[in-house]
Amino acid sequence: MKQSRLFTRTLKELPKDETSFNAQTLIRAGFVDKLGAGIYTFLPLGLRVHNKICNIIRAEMDAIGGQEILMPALIPKKNWLTTERWDNFDALFKLIGGNQKEYGLGATHEEVVTPLLQKYILSYQDLSVAVYQIQTKFRNEPRAKAGLLRGREFSMKDLYSFHPDEEALKQYYKIVQKAYFKIFERCGLIDYTYLTYAAGGAFSKYSHEFQAICPGGEDTIHICDKCKIAINQEIIDQHHTCPSCDNSKLRTAKSVEIGNIFKLGTRFAKPFEVKYTDETGQEKDVVMGCYGIGPSRLMGAIVEILHDDKGIVWPQAIAPFSIHLLSFKQDDKATTLYQTLTTAGLEVFYDDRDISMGSKLADADLIGCPHRLIISDNSLKQGGVELKLRAKEGTEIIKLDKVAAYFSK
Amino acid sequence: MKQSRLFTRTLKELPKDETSFNAQTLIRAGFVDKLGAGIYTFLPLGLRVHNKICNIIRAEMDAIGGQEILMPALIPKKNWLTTERWDNFDALFKLIGGNQKEYGLGATHEEVVTPLLQKYILSYQDLSVAVYQIQTKFRNEPRAKAGLLRGREFSMKDLYSFHPDEEALKQYYKIVQKAYFKIFERCGLIDYTYLTYAAGGAFSKYSHEFQAICPGGEDTIHICDKCKIAINQEIIDQHHTCPSCDNSKLRTAKSVEIGNIFKLGTRFAKPFEVKYTDETGQEKDVVMGCYGIGPSRLMGAIVEILHDDKGIVWPQAIAPFSIHLLSFKQDDKATTLYQTLTTAGLEVFYDDRDISMGSKLADADLIGCPHRLIISDNSLKQGGVELKLRAKEGTEIIKLDKVAAYFSK
Repeated sequence: MKQSRLFTRTLKELPKDETSFNAQTLIRAGFVDKLGAGIYTFLPLGLRVHNKICNIIRAEMDAIGGQEILMPALIPKKNWLTTERWDNFDALFKLIGGNQKEYGLGATHEEVVTPLLQKYILSYQDLSVAVYQIQTKFRNEPRAKAGLLRGREFSMKDLYSFHPDEEALKQYYKIVQKAYFKIFERCGLIDYTYLTYAAGGAFSKYSHEFQAICPGGEDTIHICDKCKIAINQEIIDQHHTCPSCDNSKLRTAKSVEIGNIFKLGTRFAKPFEVKYTDETGQEKDVVMGCYGIGPSRLMGAIVEILHDDKGIVWPQAIAPFSIHLLSFKQDDKATTLYQTLTTAGLEVFYDDRDISMGSKLADADLIGCPHRLIISDNSLKQGGVELKLRAKEGTEIIKLDKVAAYFSK
Repeated sequence: MKQSRLFTRTLKELPKDETSFNAQTLIRAGFVDKLGAGIYTFLPLGLRVHNKICNIIRAEMDAIGGQEILMPALIPKKNWLTTERWDNFDALFKLIGGNQKEYGLGATHEEVVTPLLQKYILSYQDLSVAVYQIQTKFRNEPRAKAGLLRGREFSMKDLYSFHPDEEALKQYYKIVQKAYFKIFERCGLIDYTYLTYAAGGAFSKYSHEFQAICPGGEDTIHICDKCKIAINQEIIDQHHTCPSCDNSKLRTAKSVEIGNIFKLGTRFAKPFEVKYTDETGQEKDVVMGCYGIGPSRLMGAIVEILHDDKGIVWPQAIAPFSIHLLSFKQDDKATTLYQTLTTAGLEVFYDDRDISMGSKLADADLIGCPHRLIISDNSLKQGGVELKLRAKEGTEIIKLDKVAAYFSK
């Protein structure tokens, strides 16, 4: 894409009313715009990143047998009453529609997915089954000051699994854990992420969170470096040692929750009467699990973690563009190169604007595409185009006719 | 995809509480599930169709320079007050959040997109510009009985264009008209669709709707068969003849609105003070247009229009799968063929279930994939696999080793 065509631009000033680093940076760099506290518009660059994160998550959910659906945000009051959450879910936005019908705005979707699956699960042959969606969630957060880390409106991938028994749930729960680590690996956060023991519910001692070490994070975790797992501060009173190896030398760190998984047992299956007939003809309750990752929150966490003082350092897989091509008074050659690279299927953001090289360099650093190519009198004198990786120091010169091959290898 | 894996199944009985043909059929065929009046979950088959429609729309919007963004549904009250629509937009869902902050749930997005673009439009060099989103809309419809044709929650592609003057708007308005016809062509509705003159607003005599002839439609149009345009019933009192050729022999038909385009002029630019500096240094108001297509509504319209008494007849481009492969006691050969076809990049829905051939045939007709392949003792005796097109009578036999080539040609 030609940068001159993009309707947004980077901003020189820090946005007022925004205290979080991730939102300040994403607003300055032109990825999102703030409409209200915890409410953001995704601009073209931001939407590209968001969609790439969603597609990575989607691929990993499909790989573990998840079937994608899309549930509504308007959830009738009666569904919330069935689970006794109408009056007990603090962050629920409530509204009244035509005919005085009341709705809770989807903050989570057990109240929709459970009765949905109830219609289709009859016998053991219909189990296990897992469905997921990537959808907009609404939560009436009293404080919404952490940018994309805690929105009033945000995107969520929520996977729900349905099993004949706890053993089958346990097995699938492990499979989801692995899939989550693959997602965080592909999104560049694997080195920062710890499977973290957190408070459970009626049906299991613990739930598990995926916490990424992050100075701006809202959580505190205690890490066992031997096992590479952690304990959330919220349950540290119960656990002073590693739940796996009993190691008592735990390292404390600030962190951000980038995923969580939860054994629901029959908490929702019971009120919605999700039962099945087993091999012997007996009627049994279905056992459930739920598994969340917020793509918009993950995007915010990545910015909090992967940046330097000049701007964002996007991992290749989720960068808005792989290559940022900067022309400095060499527009003919740059345009030809841009066309060559895009024809080769590469994602190129081409800064063809009539502004100073200093401004172009500052924008490229702020926006944070992994590869920067500069074409200028100087680079041509040296025999081609100058390549710099956003994440590393140093540059190299690549011949103009070798650039496409360099990136396609 | 193997049909045995799909968690949904076709339903034998018509859903109760659902009077619209499109929703009845889509529910029976397992494309959507009804959560409440005008509120539907998209199931795996339905989401595939919906996403294909969205991708066609997206491609055509990109082709006319639309830049994709994603705006929030929670729109602060002050934005609606600025345009005086807080108390004047009947279908607005209103809600109260933390700190007594009030929101209108996005029923349309002029209140977000206009102040957003105001931040970036400075001079004539920033114009014209067009942005769009594909996003969930909410409307507090008193009656929501038309299935996907009139939802309380529904998907919408809304494009907004910003211009230096009315002439530039007029030109772009024509470009969008053409893009819309391309979309309806790709979605199989071109033969049913008429550009229709409808009521305008303060800034133009008419708006334009795209109305598709449909017995179950809520609108009535008067068609000029010479010009292939129509007039909406709502303005027929002003116009008894074709606005283009003055022909008075107009044909009346029931129809469904599948798109609309509107010249907004400065209706929203003025209250949000979207101004620019022209070539001479003068400050001027920006002129806007808006353009809507609802992918979920379009999906409902396609079902209303393209079906027979056995079920849906999806156009190739938006069918959940191109090929429905039915095995009748030939699972080894069918599985091999399924693998061959999917490896060749074809989208195959493989009915590998252990049920009668009659049930498989009925499901295939109801679900409506364009190509049906049957592999059975009988077809093998005739030398291969039986192909039937959903939209046509008659079958032909294709040799097993020629099937992939047949579909790849």
